[in-house]
Amino acid sequence: MATNRRVLLKSRPQGEPTLANFDIVDQPIPEPKDGEYLSRTIWMSLDPYMRGRMAEAKGYASNVNLGDAMVGGTVGQVVKSKNPRFKEGDYVVEYAGWQSYAVSTGDMSMKLDPDAAPLSTALSVLGMPGMTAWWGLMEIGKPKAGETVVVSAASGAVGSVVGQLAKLKGCRAVGIAGGKDKCDYVVNELGFDACVDYRAAGGNLFKELRAAAPKGIDIYFENVGGAVQAAVVPQLNDFARVPLCGLIAHYNEMQMSPGPDWRLLLIKRATVTGFIVSDHFGQMADFWKEVPAAVKAGKIKYREDIVKGIENAPEAFIGLLKGRNFGKLLVQVAEDPTRK
Amino acid sequence: MATNRRVLLKSRPQGEPTLANFDIVDQPIPEPKDGEYLSRTIWMSLDPYMRGRMAEAKGYASNVNLGDAMVGGTVGQVVKSKNPRFKEGDYVVEYAGWQSYAVSTGDMSMKLDPDAAPLSTALSVLGMPGMTAWWGLMEIGKPKAGETVVVSAASGAVGSVVGQLAKLKGCRAVGIAGGKDKCDYVVNELGFDACVDYRAAGGNLFKELRAAAPKGIDIYFENVGGAVQAAVVPQLNDFARVPLCGLIAHYNEMQMSPGPDWRLLLIKRATVTGFIVSDHFGQMADFWKEVPAAVKAGKIKYREDIVKGIENAPEAFIGLLKGRNFGKLLVQVAEDPTRK
Repeated sequence: MATNRRVLLKSRPQGEPTLANFDIVDQPIPEPKDGEYLSRTIWMSLDPYMRGRMAEAKGYASNVNLGDAMVGGTVGQVVKSKNPRFKEGDYVVEYAGWQSYAVSTGDMSMKLDPDAAPLSTALSVLGMPGMTAWWGLMEIGKPKAGETVVVSAASGAVGSVVGQLAKLKGCRAVGIAGGKDKCDYVVNELGFDACVDYRAAGGNLFKELRAAAPKGIDIYFENVGGAVQAAVVPQLNDFARVPLCGLIAHYNEMQMSPGPDWRLLLIKRATVTGFIVSDHFGQMADFWKEVPAAVKAGKIKYREDIVKGIENAPEAFIGLLKGRNFGKLLVQVAEDPTRK
Repeated sequence: MATNRRVLLKSRPQGEPTLANFDIVDQPIPEPKDGEYLSRTIWMSLDPYMRGRMAEAKGYASNVNLGDAMVGGTVGQVVKSKNPRFKEGDYVVEYAGWQSYAVSTGDMSMKLDPDAAPLSTALSVLGMPGMTAWWGLMEIGKPKAGETVVVSAASGAVGSVVGQLAKLKGCRAVGIAGGKDKCDYVVNELGFDACVDYRAAGGNLFKELRAAAPKGIDIYFENVGGAVQAAVVPQLNDFARVPLCGLIAHYNEMQMSPGPDWRLLLIKRATVTGFIVSDHFGQMADFWKEVPAAVKAGKIKYREDIVKGIENAPEAFIGLLKGRNFGKLLVQVAEDPTRK
């Protein structure tokens, strides 16, 4: 008999999350009430922001309570419906969290056409990571042709789109990533102009970045913080823009980590703007106009790193925070009937 | 016989400037060539940004060469002219630097009407500091009625205008200043809602600021950095704006000083924007529409801290960096014939 396999937050991590912070349980599949539907999860997204939701301290949004399922975006198929807008067999992108079945009112769900694009892209290039890349680069960064755009975590779900969009806008795109494979992919597959391997660079990161961005940095799309941030900020050009999207190097830290001297921002008249894409879901008209077509045309490529089985989500998530994934990290919770 | 008294940069300061970094010399009064005029300086502005111009390292703009006169804004009277646009007796605001006479092509000079406003205001509330306050608050901060605006160095030439503009826009204005006299002035004379004395507060700065801004901080107009910055940034509200205007606490430092953890900016989706007003002199139409009338109507008040004699400029400037001035620091280089 089928059950609902769920990953619960058992305890809050002190520093790096460990497997002991999660509980995997099998519970009865819930019944939809009037106005709800029940979906079976096919794809589940793992994203760095989820580390924040595990914390006690006030983060972005309401954090996960102990004993509740971890939150996150998913793609599922409706298996039973008491909501006239959703019928059995419909594919939906929703926010069902780390569980194999979920009921939903559908208020935050969107139906997917499996012929338009692979279902999983609703969690990557045509979903939250893609919109994050778009908003940060286009609306905050406002790239102009000929400018230099540097993006950290360049092979990741967000960074890979940032660099490809930058190229489409006529910019020089420079990635920063960890490892030769990722850097090769970013340059050879995605078409970035250059990529700096921060792991190999070590203490030469500043110099290697200077070589890759010889005219300085007009836009720094910040995903990581730490040593990468320290190397980038002094190389910002006048009127540089810094879309501040993530700081994965710091998510496991219990203490505050000082950032750059604000004199560097003042002298360059730079702008640093923290953002979270869910504030802007209603302002994505330009994204929908441009990105799906570019993906279909092969002008924006993406790569998926697929882990099978929801019970493997905790380990995959721990690895994500260490940069072990290569491409958009997805958990395949059930067979995808649309995928050959 | 009259001579041109000039203050030259003799050596670059290591940390705090001292009198030994300056040279005071009497030189012949220069002769204007065709297309130039000669002016006699009446008022000379001393401003924190000048510390940057004394440095070797690349700062905002071209720094002062050793042996050259210090740079700065001045109000003078034309005493001899070979430029048809300026005639003897005209009052001008110009960038003549630390000297009692200067020749100029007039390209960057603006004639002043002494009946419209006191001449010295062209260096304070109706000059660079007033425009700085306007640009930072209005164009970067974009205040909305009901929001809380916090400004550091609140009794100074820039901060005093920021808080009064904030009040005119329907905001709660909270100042931070050093000493009871300055705080009393900011609240009782300028009409701020509250002022925190950071010297008296010591380790309680965070708490006192919380009491003065109980709904959090929507706009922080940054003039100082240091401990004040550290107390303010964790109290920023969602979508806070930080016009980054100055960092006077750091100008004498030889080493980088870490700034706040960017996680604080990310979680709050805050924006920090470094700016320098001279980038925007051409975009001041709204300033000219609103501020002179508000000054004339007494809705924006200002205070001058006047030091007599150009030879006293170095000491006054050193004091400015320590917060010893109270109001806009001006050097009176010659009698002002329009002042009763």
